Amino acid sequence: MKAILIICDGMADRPVKELSWKTPLEAAYKPSLNQIAKTGICGIMDLIAPGIPPGSDSATLALLGYDALKVYSGRGAFEAVGSGVQVLPGDVAFRCNFATANEKLVVLDRRAGRIENEDADKLAQSLQKIKLKTPSVKFLFKNTIQHRAVLVIRGPKLSTAVSDSDPQKTGEKVLEIKPLNTSFEAKYTAKILNELAHQFHTVLKDHSVNKQRVKRKLLPANIILCRGAGTIPKIKPLSELYGVKAACIAATSLIRGVCEASGMKLINVKGATGTPQTDFLALAKATNQVLRTFDFVLLHVKATDVASHDRNIKQKVEMIEKVDNMVGRILNNIDLNSVYLAITADHTTSLATGNHEGDPVPIAITGPYVRRDDVERFDERCCAKGGLNRIRGMDLMPTLMNLLGKTKKFGA
Amino acid sequence: MKAILIICDGMADRPVKELSWKTPLEAAYKPSLNQIAKTGICGIMDLIAPGIPPGSDSATLALLGYDALKVYSGRGAFEAVGSGVQVLPGDVAFRCNFATANEKLVVLDRRAGRIENEDADKLAQSLQKIKLKTPSVKFLFKNTIQHRAVLVIRGPKLSTAVSDSDPQKTGEKVLEIKPLNTSFEAKYTAKILNELAHQFHTVLKDHSVNKQRVKRKLLPANIILCRGAGTIPKIKPLSELYGVKAACIAATSLIRGVCEASGMKLINVKGATGTPQTDFLALAKATNQVLRTFDFVLLHVKATDVASHDRNIKQKVEMIEKVDNMVGRILNNIDLNSVYLAITADHTTSLATGNHEGDPVPIAITGPYVRRDDVERFDERCCAKGGLNRIRGMDLMPTLMNLLGKTKKFGA
Repeated sequence: MKAILIICDGMADRPVKELSWKTPLEAAYKPSLNQIAKTGICGIMDLIAPGIPPGSDSATLALLGYDALKVYSGRGAFEAVGSGVQVLPGDVAFRCNFATANEKLVVLDRRAGRIENEDADKLAQSLQKIKLKTPSVKFLFKNTIQHRAVLVIRGPKLSTAVSDSDPQKTGEKVLEIKPLNTSFEAKYTAKILNELAHQFHTVLKDHSVNKQRVKRKLLPANIILCRGAGTIPKIKPLSELYGVKAACIAATSLIRGVCEASGMKLINVKGATGTPQTDFLALAKATNQVLRTFDFVLLHVKATDVASHDRNIKQKVEMIEKVDNMVGRILNNIDLNSVYLAITADHTTSLATGNHEGDPVPIAITGPYVRRDDVERFDERCCAKGGLNRIRGMDLMPTLMNLLGKTKKFGA
Repeated sequence: MKAILIICDGMADRPVKELSWKTPLEAAYKPSLNQIAKTGICGIMDLIAPGIPPGSDSATLALLGYDALKVYSGRGAFEAVGSGVQVLPGDVAFRCNFATANEKLVVLDRRAGRIENEDADKLAQSLQKIKLKTPSVKFLFKNTIQHRAVLVIRGPKLSTAVSDSDPQKTGEKVLEIKPLNTSFEAKYTAKILNELAHQFHTVLKDHSVNKQRVKRKLLPANIILCRGAGTIPKIKPLSELYGVKAACIAATSLIRGVCEASGMKLINVKGATGTPQTDFLALAKATNQVLRTFDFVLLHVKATDVASHDRNIKQKVEMIEKVDNMVGRILNNIDLNSVYLAITADHTTSLATGNHEGDPVPIAITGPYVRRDDVERFDERCCAKGGLNRIRGMDLMPTLMNLLGKTKKFGA
């Protein structure tokens, strides 16, 4: 017995006026998703708790069966791990942006004109040469895609209790990093980060790459904005918890980081970009193939969330239909006598607000021994009538593992 | 206002191929169970948590309103208490088997040919005469039914953090008991138990009863296998929690132990055997009678679980039909203007796997002031549409006691 869990980022929604008050899932043509609902057991799920908008990281932690409220330790470390940067226990990691600021350190563009990888590569190499005044602390700065980067600091007595330098808005000044409590560790970490921020700026502002960018009428990447201080959570790997060999197919480094932290094997799929242009067919093929050698495969699709954040109604419906097509291909190539397939979203993203919302998401599980209910369509409202009723995100993994005979008995 | 709670061990199931993908509850003819659903409020219930397969002991603790995840302290003590052996705070108790091993201590039969009570009585008397090297530790060894026995050790600094000597399989060597952590207490307890195991074997291997058994071509009971180290949990009795006089009708010593630990009066019913041959009529009569002098009666039926573990589809359906008949007699003899009757299972036992599974169980409560829903049949899928929605095992007792006006207000 094996299981596939398909997580469509931000796919759930509220009723949309422009869709005659249907949700995008209700409006989309999605025979394969409906097939899962029709042959399976359905429900709704609060990733963290009713009304609490989850992040994609905390939601994925929950979906893997962990108590996110207890173990979640910030986004930065997941982002770093998912980008291939090693994060050790005690390290503090941040998500960073190359950005553009003026002489008064007012942010003009949070993405430095979506700087190309080539320029970012060169700048990151120069930054990595900086020597900190505190020799016991080391840092690692790595650019990932375009303006995105990660920063990891390593050394004794570091803390995640520090604020961001990223003001999250253009037109505002780069923020000084502040300790979030009165401990020595928080103050010490903030001091090191402010020193580093200053040194980053010093190197970047006169860097030849930026001088050439200005000549090419491109925005210079003269500042590094940091946010989301985090450490890797102390969690047992899925292999230890359930005795399963687990793999993750995800393009988004944040999700890859969560999956890596839970001991899953990260699978790279050519053409999987985490954008609406991602190769859905390649994702389907990879899922079917990986299932041959793994017990549990998590497939994460980012495209649905991109459309939601962009408040692009048409595109969100389109993305759901592409997901449906992908799911159809996966379904056609698995044996439902020995495979359970679950589909859900990691959170509701509202087309009306463009934000993550705390409304529950629909969930459907098909496979040989589920107590099939009479729900016929996979959407927020139909699934609310299903046999799973309303569960928490962290209940899903035990529910799936129970069907696989992999949960441990409590009691005798 | 009074209440009856009927717990049918392992009655819930998954859809069964041989029953045209119905569950045994769905396939059985059960007008009385349906009557409870039809006139009552229904739901599904996770005994411990979604997906977690409960033991019968932890599940019964939960059904009595205790937080099993916090208070459950191993099976052994319940088994001992339920067999009429006193277990004091600090005592460590085990479930034991008389078994047969060869000279190399390889287990040949875990039940010593299901040794008769008479032989087991004599052997147990001899074992009880053993003197331990550590005079501050005393032990009590008592046989119960056939090969079954309990061992209680009493003294300072004992621990439940010790492994089993029972390998749970024939063809494997009797296990040395090992400390499960590095504490003095665990090491000390393991040492005492290994000494005891050795002395038990010394007495048994040359015992006249065993010599006669060999002559009669029966397997000698030359070894004692121990498992499930436990203490009695620190819980308040139901009388203190709810001010009710509570009684338990159960043949299984494990369940009797849990009920005794929660301060319930144990009722013995002639003909109640805990087997499929149990006297269902006697159980019904006893329930009606006990209700006259108690506020809350728990009736536990083991037969449904026996059929499930044996993967006997026909028998499971048959047992459900016998339960239904029993419930009909109980219903006919209570006044539903003043009595609430709840029926449920302590866990799902799958006919396909023969194991406890983590799928939720159906629950129905009838009685004067329940918010009757429109569920018409008592089974896993119909109850999932009921007015109770999905609750936890530990929520049931407060739900019942609330109907009886026995729960304490929280707040003012």
